[in-house]
Amino acid sequence: MALQLLTHREGLGKLQQALSAVDAEIKTCSTCSNISLGDPCHICTDDTRDAGSLCVVEGVDDLWAMERSGAFKGYYHILGGVVSAIDGVGPEDLTIDQLVNRVEKGAFEEVILALGASVDGQTTAHLISRKLKPLGVDVSALARGIPIGAEVDYMDDGTLSLALKGRQVF
Amino acid sequence: MALQLLTHREGLGKLQQALSAVDAEIKTCSTCSNISLGDPCHICTDDTRDAGSLCVVEGVDDLWAMERSGAFKGYYHILGGVVSAIDGVGPEDLTIDQLVNRVEKGAFEEVILALGASVDGQTTAHLISRKLKPLGVDVSALARGIPIGAEVDYMDDGTLSLALKGRQVF
Repeated sequence: MALQLLTHREGLGKLQQALSAVDAEIKTCSTCSNISLGDPCHICTDDTRDAGSLCVVEGVDDLWAMERSGAFKGYYHILGGVVSAIDGVGPEDLTIDQLVNRVEKGAFEEVILALGASVDGQTTAHLISRKLKPLGVDVSALARGIPIGAEVDYMDDGTLSLALKGRQVF
Repeated sequence: MALQLLTHREGLGKLQQALSAVDAEIKTCSTCSNISLGDPCHICTDDTRDAGSLCVVEGVDDLWAMERSGAFKGYYHILGGVVSAIDGVGPEDLTIDQLVNRVEKGAFEEVILALGASVDGQTTAHLISRKLKPLGVDVSALARGIPIGAEVDYMDDGTLSLALKGRQVF
């Protein structure tokens, strides 16, 4: 990429312009921390969405994944990461206080924690759940189980245990 | 492997003996189709297991995976495959009739379908469920969702939709 730019110098200016346009035009939503052309973002300003449910995700890529699936119609809150002892990320580095604020003020009936099924993701989910439950809101988490297309004999023990525990009436 | 046997002829006899020992000693359980040293197998003859629940799996490898997880304490039924239009496998090629027989006779309260989350697996699950429900037994299936260790943004749309639909109170 660097060589391409060095040998095609006319690209340098365009890239500079694009970078400054990104810097000038792409905003971080002060409500949900999504990136968008405006603040508040196009999701927070969309009145047609389900005002009762809030989905908590780790990053913008997770929000995109949820939107791509088309399954969720409510609003989002981006944490900006998960607490991690190894990476030195504490609760104060995330937007947990803003989340508590939104839930206190908002008319959300349910908060859905769509965090990764890793140790850090689950630690963060527990932390948030402890802060939100006293506010009288329903807190739920994405189902753990066997992903579509997967075979039973290739699944790890933990996933099989959770899939069995969370089995659903057929 | 073939070259190893050709150059170390003394191995040929041992392998022949091992193969004939397998043929003579390893039995297929006439109840659940598991492979074991006896018929009925060591699981079907284990009185300490939960007699109320029956887990339906595709093959012996799936039974091993469930046993390895330690989460299931009931009995098993091995189908010997799943119905598949492409592979030309019909319901009559599987042990579905034997399964219906066992449920009719047995004191099972719940049948858990632990089949793969593929199209063929789900078709088979629907087929079995239609045959078992009139017998008054509870039919459930392993939870679909996000496997342990997985990140939300790497999951496919279908899995995310199912994980959201099957979300559990935190």
